[in-house]
Amino acid sequence: MAKISVLGAGSWGTALSILLYNNGHEVILWSALGEEITTLREKREHVSKLPGVKIPEPIDITIDLERSLRDADVAILAVPSPYTRSTCKRMAPFVKNGQKIVNVAKGVEEKTLLTLSEIIEQELPQANVSVLSGPSHAEEVGKGLPTTCVVSSHQRETAEYLQGIFMSPVFRVYTTPDMLGVELGAALKNVIALAAGTADGLGYGDNTKAALITRGIAEISRLGVKMGARMETFYGLSGIGDLIVTCASVHSRNRKAGYLMGKGYTMEQAMAEVKMIVEGVYSAKAAKELAEKYDVEMPIITEINKVLFEGKSAAEAVIDLMVRDKKVETPMLPWEDGQKTN
Amino acid sequence: MAKISVLGAGSWGTALSILLYNNGHEVILWSALGEEITTLREKREHVSKLPGVKIPEPIDITIDLERSLRDADVAILAVPSPYTRSTCKRMAPFVKNGQKIVNVAKGVEEKTLLTLSEIIEQELPQANVSVLSGPSHAEEVGKGLPTTCVVSSHQRETAEYLQGIFMSPVFRVYTTPDMLGVELGAALKNVIALAAGTADGLGYGDNTKAALITRGIAEISRLGVKMGARMETFYGLSGIGDLIVTCASVHSRNRKAGYLMGKGYTMEQAMAEVKMIVEGVYSAKAAKELAEKYDVEMPIITEINKVLFEGKSAAEAVIDLMVRDKKVETPMLPWEDGQKTN
Repeated sequence: MAKISVLGAGSWGTALSILLYNNGHEVILWSALGEEITTLREKREHVSKLPGVKIPEPIDITIDLERSLRDADVAILAVPSPYTRSTCKRMAPFVKNGQKIVNVAKGVEEKTLLTLSEIIEQELPQANVSVLSGPSHAEEVGKGLPTTCVVSSHQRETAEYLQGIFMSPVFRVYTTPDMLGVELGAALKNVIALAAGTADGLGYGDNTKAALITRGIAEISRLGVKMGARMETFYGLSGIGDLIVTCASVHSRNRKAGYLMGKGYTMEQAMAEVKMIVEGVYSAKAAKELAEKYDVEMPIITEINKVLFEGKSAAEAVIDLMVRDKKVETPMLPWEDGQKTN
Repeated sequence: MAKISVLGAGSWGTALSILLYNNGHEVILWSALGEEITTLREKREHVSKLPGVKIPEPIDITIDLERSLRDADVAILAVPSPYTRSTCKRMAPFVKNGQKIVNVAKGVEEKTLLTLSEIIEQELPQANVSVLSGPSHAEEVGKGLPTTCVVSSHQRETAEYLQGIFMSPVFRVYTTPDMLGVELGAALKNVIALAAGTADGLGYGDNTKAALITRGIAEISRLGVKMGARMETFYGLSGIGDLIVTCASVHSRNRKAGYLMGKGYTMEQAMAEVKMIVEGVYSAKAAKELAEKYDVEMPIITEINKVLFEGKSAAEAVIDLMVRDKKVETPMLPWEDGQKTN
């Protein structure tokens, strides 16, 4: 049994608290929002973000950050990515040497192009940072439906310790050393979800959507490999697995915003309609900058940026994607006659 | 402009005939079924299999196999996989040396464990065999919705010639030398679609389905690589791309049969209800034999075989998949401290 501090009481933080409590751990759930704390304590349920899922009484709910971190064997960082850096700054005085921190949010910082674990390591150099990611709607984890994730740490020992902490008969956890691959895939897949939503909005079918998903993850993996990540990771749970879940979901904000743009909305109109942060819009910009920085061809990322920021129509973007130069599917494979393509 | 003979007038053969005609080629469409020919000629529409899609008048519809092959630059073999061998036997007298044949069906022969291109090459050693595959519901191609596929040939020159034949503003074609990877992925993905359907039938959510898809293609690629195919291909259009389309489709027989088994039907009851050949059931058996032959661990394939042929309940199979030994996601990647996992 471990002492676990979950920082951030949104849908994912709440669902993970319950999972970890059910696994036999002592769980303390922290939120920066006084009102949220009051309601969670009163109702023992996150009525707006995780309705219908009861929070067991022994889970301690607090607004006291110092207390929540005091004896924690593991701290789970579950705040939305725009708050990762500021939350780390607040945590800094209470984080001991070697403190295990598991980030479960997704994103790339727009200004610095850093991944979230890199931000945490900048702000909390004394911590031992890991990440958890995968196809995991919080609502389904809250209901105990079978789910798989991947945990990545710098040391194998830490990854296996965390695998043991999270794993249950309904929550299967794999380990991987490729933290960069896990984080990049998780952040950039939202851009492809936006594109897939746009195709839906344009009235295209499953063929088009499957093409965007498959070729989308191919170009993300090209970028990731050039940055030092492993191709396999993008084809794993945190990459294509999570992308499939996002594109299938009617609840995804990224998919919904894309859908509206397919229907002819501008990016601003779509954002206004969805009324929440559409992560993929920011990631699209970051992805484009990374593509330029690492000199990688990313046709889908390029077109979605034109639709988002240059007023190109979505229909025109799809046509331009379809009629590009003829290509091999996976460059570098040799032909039987010894010819190579690049 | 090329002369193209399409053999097999099911939904896919018919849709491809129209696509190729629209690309400016001379198309002759053959079927072995006299009744089908009569109706197609009369209605200029495949009323049962591709309703609402008109077959242009200049497409020549025939039951005369010799005439259909006589001047063909390219023959498209679009008969269902159980008829691939027998159709090749009938074609043999009319197939000239170096005849380009493109197989567009999917499957592995149960008795021999041969891929379809290997069967064609056995029966028609004089032919130059290629394959076309990818996420492509015939209904959507018939309607002109944007679709992508991959074509594989032994020679780069042939692949690029065929890419030029098929490609249009709504049908984008990539090339690849990895014919074995294309064929194995296309055949074995039906087993995973069956498993994904079962999860739906059990009432599980998107998390479970994404896990089955992601880990399913991972184990298929492990087998394929051991057989000599390339990992990238399984993560391309003919592998994961096609699997995504199949698992999303309410029309897929494989998904539907799985769904019924998730609801408690036996395999026989599910097959009787679906009333058509459920390819995944046969492929499941073939996959299991291949896994044994090549000594590859395939947990999902193993469990689906137990459900299909040994009376194991689907719910029990999912639990056994979730609580297996703890694993790394992609074996062989090194950790920062130099440790390896296998």
